[in-house]
Parts: sequence; C-alpha cells; structure tokens
Amino acid sequence: MNEETTMFAAQIYTERRARLRERVGSGVILLPGNEESPMNYPDNTFRFRQDGTFLYFFGLDAPHLAALIDADEGEEVVYGDEVTMDDIIWMGPQRPLAEKAAAAGAGATAPHAALGAALEKARRAGRPVHYLPPYRGETALLLHGLLGTPAAALRAGASLALTRAVVEQRSVKSSAEVAEIEKALEISHEMHTAAMRMARPGMVEREVAGVVDGIALARGGRNSFPTIFTTHGETLHNHYHGNVLREGNLVLHDSGAESPLHYASDITRTFPAGGKFTERQREVYSAVLAAQKRAIAAVRPGVEFREVHSLACEVLAGGLVELGLMRGDPHEAVRAGAHALFCPHGLGHMLGLDVHDMEGLGEDHVGYDETIRRSETFGFRALRLGRALREGFVLTMEPGLYFIPALIDQWKAAGRHAAFIDYDAVDGFRDFGGIRIEDDVLVLAGGSRVLGRPIPKTVADVEAACSR
Amino acid sequence: MNEETTMFAAQIYTERRARLRERVGSGVILLPGNEESPMNYPDNTFRFRQDGTFLYFFGLDAPHLAALIDADEGEEVVYGDEVTMDDIIWMGPQRPLAEKAAAAGAGATAPHAALGAALEKARRAGRPVHYLPPYRGETALLLHGLLGTPAAALRAGASLALTRAVVEQRSVKSSAEVAEIEKALEISHEMHTAAMRMARPGMVEREVAGVVDGIALARGGRNSFPTIFTTHGETLHNHYHGNVLREGNLVLHDSGAESPLHYASDITRTFPAGGKFTERQREVYSAVLAAQKRAIAAVRPGVEFREVHSLACEVLAGGLVELGLMRGDPHEAVRAGAHALFCPHGLGHMLGLDVHDMEGLGEDHVGYDETIRRSETFGFRALRLGRALREGFVLTMEPGLYFIPALIDQWKAAGRHAAFIDYDAVDGFRDFGGIRIEDDVLVLAGGSRVLGRPIPKTVADVEAACSR
Repeated sequence: MNEETTMFAAQIYTERRARLRERVGSGVILLPGNEESPMNYPDNTFRFRQDGTFLYFFGLDAPHLAALIDADEGEEVVYGDEVTMDDIIWMGPQRPLAEKAAAAGAGATAPHAALGAALEKARRAGRPVHYLPPYRGETALLLHGLLGTPAAALRAGASLALTRAVVEQRSVKSSAEVAEIEKALEISHEMHTAAMRMARPGMVEREVAGVVDGIALARGGRNSFPTIFTTHGETLHNHYHGNVLREGNLVLHDSGAESPLHYASDITRTFPAGGKFTERQREVYSAVLAAQKRAIAAVRPGVEFREVHSLACEVLAGGLVELGLMRGDPHEAVRAGAHALFCPHGLGHMLGLDVHDMEGLGEDHVGYDETIRRSETFGFRALRLGRALREGFVLTMEPGLYFIPALIDQWKAAGRHAAFIDYDAVDGFRDFGGIRIEDDVLVLAGGSRVLGRPIPKTVADVEAACSR
Repeated sequence: MNEETTMFAAQIYTERRARLRERVGSGVILLPGNEESPMNYPDNTFRFRQDGTFLYFFGLDAPHLAALIDADEGEEVVYGDEVTMDDIIWMGPQRPLAEKAAAAGAGATAPHAALGAALEKARRAGRPVHYLPPYRGETALLLHGLLGTPAAALRAGASLALTRAVVEQRSVKSSAEVAEIEKALEISHEMHTAAMRMARPGMVEREVAGVVDGIALARGGRNSFPTIFTTHGETLHNHYHGNVLREGNLVLHDSGAESPLHYASDITRTFPAGGKFTERQREVYSAVLAAQKRAIAAVRPGVEFREVHSLACEVLAGGLVELGLMRGDPHEAVRAGAHALFCPHGLGHMLGLDVHDMEGLGEDHVGYDETIRRSETFGFRALRLGRALREGFVLTMEPGLYFIPALIDQWKAAGRHAAFIDYDAVDGFRDFGGIRIEDDVLVLAGGSRVLGRPIPKTVADVEAACSR
C-alpha cells in the first residue's frame, strides 16, 4: 500500500457531516480538497498537504478530490479520478475511489470532471452553493471555473453560514483529536530537547534547525509551520537560519509537528546558546515565564481570551517595571497599550488541523464573535483570539518580550507612551533579542491542562537540558 | 541581515538579459517571480522557492517581484513593494527594492501595483507581451488579472519566441553554474553516504529519509525534489516512507539538494538494507551499472541523447538476456520496445536551476528540437531528452531495471513482446523491486565529466559504505 490509510472511523466523519448539514440548513456545500502545489514546475511539487476542513469532514489525504454535500437531501458525493497504469508505474498502487469514499462513510463517487455539471444543475435550480474562502491559487481557479465567479470576487462570495458552521464544529476538540495533538507534541518534545542538547557556540543556526526538521520527518510527521530557530528572536517570524550561535546569545526556537492525521503542535522555547543564561536574560525570561503561568492559570470556560491576554501583558509590564524599562502602574500601561513596544503580538491562537486553526476561514470568524470584536489598538490588533473560551478549545499560550530596534527607534522618535517607557534604559537592551515561551493548552470544565510531555521550561530545567 | 544575499555578480544578470532581448527581438518581456505558496491557510506557506527563469535573469530570491524587459528599448524595470514596519516586526529588516534591483544590474524599480498600467500601455501600443507558461495558480491569476487572458487559455498564449530564447540560454551552463551544481552535489554526497551508513534492518524508511532531508537543510540547502527512499523501488516516484527495512531488501534512494543559488543535484543509489547484495541483486545491479557506464562513455557534443538512451537500454536488455528474463537480440528487442517492461522511463534529463531543468517551459521545447521529435513508443515516450548534446549541457544519467507487478500482469495477459520476454522467468522476480543508478554529467568538448565527489557506486564500494 502506497499511502497512509490512517483515518478516524468512518462514523466520525459521517456524524460531523450530519451536523454540518443541519447547521447550514439548505443548499449545496462544495468542499474542494487541495491540489498538488507546484514548486518550480508542474510536476515538482511541495509535499502534499490536504485542506484542513476537507480532512475534518472526509479525512481523505490525497490530491484532486472534492465533495458535494446536499444540505437538503443529505446526499454526499466524493469527486475524484481513478488511477491509470501510468500512475501505478510512477506513484504505486492506489485504492479505488469508491474504497476511499467508503472509508469516509460517503457512499457515492463520481469523476472529478462531473463536478461542473452537478453544480450547474444546483445553480439552475436556484439553490445556493456554499463554499469557503479559497487560499490557494489552484483552488481559486477551480472555483472560478466551476462557479463563473471572477477570481477577485471569490473570497467575498464565500458562504458566511458555512464558515460559521465549520468554525463552530472545528473549534471544540474531541478526545480523539486531543490525542492526535498530543502525538504531535511527543515529536515536539524530541525536537526541542534535541535542539537544546545539540546547540552550542560556533554552530550555524541551520545546522541545528535542519536536524530538528529531520526529526519531524523521521517520526512520520512534518513541520506544521516553517521552523523559527534564531538568535534574532526579536523578529517574530524569523526564518533565516544563517547566523552563527555565540556565547551570550539567546536562541528562540518555535516549531511544530503534525500527527499522522495532520493535527498540529506548536511549541516555543528560548534557551542560552552557551548553556547558561546571563543575569539579565534570566530576569527577562522569568518575567515571560511568570506571565505564561498566570495566563494558563486564568484559563477556564467562559473567560474571554482577550482578558487572559491583558492579564499576561500586565505581568510582563510588571516585570519590565522591575527591570527599569517601564514605569508607572502596569495595569494602566497595558490599558494604554504601552507594553506593545515589547510585546507586539497576541497571547495565542486556536490549534488543531491547522496550526493557526481555521485561520484561512477568516481570523475574525475564528477568534471573535458577535459580542467580542477585534480591537484596533496596536498590541491588541494582532491578537488572533479574543472570544470567550469553551470546554474543548485547544489554544497556544505564548507570551514574549522582544527588543526590536526599528520599532524602538520609531516609538522613541515619536515620544510614544513616554510616561510609561524609559527609552534611555531600553537603549541598553537593543541587542537583547527576544524571548517567547509557548505551550499548547486544552480548556477543561474546571480549568485547563497543558498538553503533552513537559518540555524543559524553568531556568534550571532549560540549563540542565542544555548541559552536555 | 535577514536574507541570503548570495547572487552572481550583477554583470552576469545584465549580460543574460541583453542576450535575451536580442533573441526575442521585439515586444515586452514579462517575467513574474513566484509568490508565496500557501500550505493550509494564506499565512502558512511552503518554504519559498523562486521561479528558475526569474532567478536566471535577476537572481532575486524573494516573493512578490516581477520584471518587465523592453526588448526594443532595452528598458528593464523590477516591480515590487517596500517593506512596512509590520513586515519588519514579523520578518525582520529587508533591503530596499532599489538595492535589490541594483544587485541584479537593473536600474529602474516601481511598485508592484504599477505593473498593470505598464502592460496596459504596451498593449494599447499594439506591442506583443511575451510571457512563459505559468505553473502555479497564483501566477496564472496574476497573468489573468494583468492581461485579461482567460486562465484556461494562458498556457496556449505563452510566447514561443520567449520560451525558445530562455531554453537556448539556460541549456548551456557556465563554469560558475557548474560550480553551483557541484556545491549541491557535495551535500548529496553527505546525504547518500549517511543513508548507507545509517540504514539497517528494522528501521522504518522515514527514519533514514528524515535524517537525509535534515542534512540538506542543515547544510544550507533544501531538497531539490521530494526524496525517494524506498524498498519498493519499482514504483518510480515512490514518496511513501512507511515500510520497514528488512534483510534482503534493496533500498532505492533518489534525492537531491539545492546549492545556495538554487542549482540542483540529483543522485540515485540503490543499496542492500542488510549491507550485502544477494547474488541475484548483484547480477541485476551490475547490468544497470554497466548500462550507466556505457551511456556516460557515449556522451559528447553532437551525439543525440535518444541514441545514448538506446545504447543504455541495449546493455540492460543484454543483462536481462543473461539473467534469462529476455531472449533474442538485445538491439532488436530495444528497437521493438520490449525492454520497456523493465525500464519504462528515460535515461535522463537536463539539470540546472530546476532538477528537471526548465520542464515547466514544456518538455518538448527543452528535450527536443526541430529535427528530433519525441517518440510515441512506450519506453521512448517517457524520455525527457532526445536532442543532440552540446558542450555545457548538464544531464542526469540514470538507467534502471524495475519489476512492476501490475505492468508485468498487463503485458503478460496481452502476450506483449512474448518473443523477447520469458514471462515465466519474470514471475520469479515479481518481488525484486527496482534498481536505479544516477549521476550528473557535464558535456565537455571532448566527452563528459561526472560531476561531484564520487559517491560509492560499485558493488564493493556500496557494500563497504553500508558496513558498520
């Protein structure tokens, strides 16, 4: 067999689709799976990644599939093509389409080319066709061809009813889904402890980052997002791996793996390249760790995540006051947005089949709702998640402190929040870099649980993991 | 600095573009660089890979760039956008666009959004706009938006004059380009010798494949194509890595890396999982190795590659006759196409900035020409390259022998080439798998040179490299 057949039981997909039909109510639901993504010519493709929503409702991990779900009649058809002898010679034997569909609990199949006629029929009957906003060019071209919608209008034409129904279902994780996330976290454990053990002054970042990525592959997974492994942690999504590690550097390592069923992990640790934190690094690190602990302790159903974010920011601001970088009341400083110079991103995001779970459906649909809308204030604007938490949500908790020279210069020149920020003191930290600590947390009825086997996090544990 | 600034000297790009303008003669040449490729939502992208032709003429390794070259007036403009403070916070500092363009020897720059007006002006003046066939959805959408051409008609509307000019230039490699390929081959050496040293019965394929891919990353490269590492080498492009290695298995390992400037290597070795070939494996292996040696010896300028392919196939057929799997005259057998049951692919392809170099421009434009057209015969149809060789071409030489149960069943049932094939004997090889041996070869005035540090290839050397 030449493909991973790992899926949940067919019944799970059948039930998920039944709930989806019910929520959407009427019309035709079009769920295209992903196509292959060409890298530098049509046949040299990036490693295939199925669309998260298609995986959630059908579990089929192969390119060039699509599904139609009739919300009124309940009919479900999987569209795809059977393999040819050429496919077998080049790609190996494959299961017939009917067998694949059956594994997803869907009875009917049809050739991919029949999709157009089925949609044409629905549109002639005046039935709405629900689809989600496309994020790949290939999907946009497919939808444009099927629906006639101009490519530029496709995102605006996506179904709000379908988007909301999918977000509602995917937001709450079952125990089987949590178990998948913990499988990914087991790989993360190995990736992070290997990096701490292996990194030492003189190595180039990529020498460690390459081995870390190799671990994800060797364990049957893949990176759930491009690895950040950098001595310049102040750049939030730094994918450059060409710096040499030096004694006194901090290394920020943010990486994740996928489980066999493509659930993500997402973990950040920051550790000293030379194995021992300096006194100053220890102080900043301790403020970030305290903020994370305080935030995790605040997680429970009903709590608004933006409040948890503010709480974490207040702990960070308190730490910055102790360090002499900020002054005044931390609560007031955070209300004013002064902390955002050091912490310009949000506390966390949903985690699931996508590492920023469902982000492609629109962050505001996932992280906010009718009652809680995204703030326009810098420091809150970047918060991907603000809404009230529910049991079964899985979230990242990832506070950080960063010293971004370009941003410091900009704020200092404008005298922004000068009442709260001691810019002269901040200048002494221009080359500090950044610290982030991130874990993945499940919301429980009574509070929360940090998922996965613990990865060294206290100053003492991190230094021990770095010792050789 | 947050990006690799490695490029050739500006003068090289300037000269390449001057030759291109001259060859194309008139009109406007539109060269879009690649955009980011979303994996599972817009901001979670596969690792960026620039388009090979854009790299060749501009060398700029960043997304969301495009260039217009006026073939009549000689004007060259690089289109792109300057970074914002948000970009700096998330992605780090970047060079200004003008500095990037200057590194490519191109003086003028403009915002990406200005591209539409420039093309509109050219079209109003009735000037032809030359573009290459797009292979990514994002590029097709861009061209559709810029030119108004229906997406489905874009490939047909691509410029033959531009395609031919690009193929003509990129086909002949300079010594600087050959040096880049050899940097990639140095990484390949480490990938292949590590795999031979590390693999042993009981391991899962991906445990080795993951480490191999990690080496490409750790050395500052990346895979030039998805790694094949399989005990089922009979499937030509087998990307499944879930089988357990067992004593008696052959492992087929076909992988490649990219140099800093994105030139590819592409090497295949086949080795015994247990460290020692069986007698039968040794016999088949020796036939493949003899075919490769014979083919490499035949390479020189003026020789048609399809003739070299036939020569290799005759050596393979001769080996199969000795093994009792074929009968009759090998030359006649190959003319009839009987060998293709065991060798359904071509002997090799061009290698350069793409691993199947320029394949996106159309295989027939790259591998064939006015005088030598692609054959429709099975076994020759899959030959990517048939044309007469020229000094400076870099080619893969990769003969193989495969035992593909589904294909054997099909041919046997149809009695195909029964005069040449002993199907009863072939049945005894149904579980043999496949063997391929591949090196990268530069065509020299007097013959050829196998590029890179030698990677173990003889039976004795491979067994030694596998010994622990």
